[in-house]
Amino acid sequence: MLGIDPGYAIVGYGCLDSAGSRFRVVAYDAITTPAHTDFGDRLTHIYDEMARILDRYKPDAMSVEKLYFTNNVTTGIAVAQARGCILLAANQAGVPVYEYTPPQIKQAVTGYGGAEKRQMIAMTTRLLNLAEPPQPDDVADALAAAICHANTAGSLLDRLNKGGQAL
Amino acid sequence: MLGIDPGYAIVGYGCLDSAGSRFRVVAYDAITTPAHTDFGDRLTHIYDEMARILDRYKPDAMSVEKLYFTNNVTTGIAVAQARGCILLAANQAGVPVYEYTPPQIKQAVTGYGGAEKRQMIAMTTRLLNLAEPPQPDDVADALAAAICHANTAGSLLDRLNKGGQAL
Repeated sequence: MLGIDPGYAIVGYGCLDSAGSRFRVVAYDAITTPAHTDFGDRLTHIYDEMARILDRYKPDAMSVEKLYFTNNVTTGIAVAQARGCILLAANQAGVPVYEYTPPQIKQAVTGYGGAEKRQMIAMTTRLLNLAEPPQPDDVADALAAAICHANTAGSLLDRLNKGGQAL
Repeated sequence: MLGIDPGYAIVGYGCLDSAGSRFRVVAYDAITTPAHTDFGDRLTHIYDEMARILDRYKPDAMSVEKLYFTNNVTTGIAVAQARGCILLAANQAGVPVYEYTPPQIKQAVTGYGGAEKRQMIAMTTRLLNLAEPPQPDDVADALAAAICHANTAGSLLDRLNKGGQAL
């Protein structure tokens, strides 16, 4: 499964395999686009890299944080435009997309929906047995989104296996 | 030149040739995606249609309204995501993109930056010698964006020809 932290300057990604509550880290890194470049060129670079990552790791699902705008609407629009190109690449690769709100991701990783960034990074690093916190933070956020989906999908599967109802 | 009114349910487009202040309408229509369809499928459809339109009409430029959010942020995010896929298609086709604010487009078409929608549609229909107002309104908006770019680029060219400074 592939977790994504969308952006136009930095797109974090992290690819995990999961078996029950155990994770195996396949790859994680960031797609970056230089500032002061044509915005269309940035979108094309992000789209091309996403297509390459999806083709290389062939994830069964993509998990992305739901977008919400708080402070800067101009930045928010640019991020949403880049996010559209990321969703496009996933759709073209036939990879289903799951979206989670920031509190859902925090809850899944730390057990607390209001967790702070530092705590999120520390727990992500620990859950995945990484020697060091992934850099930049966007990569840790992407891995957290992947963990969130693995846990959500995992518990759903548990319920189905136990004859329970799907959510 | 290609004018675009971005959206995820309806993308208006209008293709014009211009010589001085005279316009020739090449084509205009809307890309539509059905409601209650997977959002990724809608993005893929818009991207595919945009690629087809850009390849068919080979515009020298694409003119798109600048996005601004007023009422509904959720709708705004979805529109921005679709707009990202539209900008991506233009960049991949090597077509330069120009952005204009709604007041700039209104000013260019009606001479008044605060013009009402009805007035905009009437002037667009008249400037392009169309028998009837284009439907839906998104198509008229796309044609208005194309007119705005033609006029702006035209007056810039006039200035250059007269030995003036580029803006």
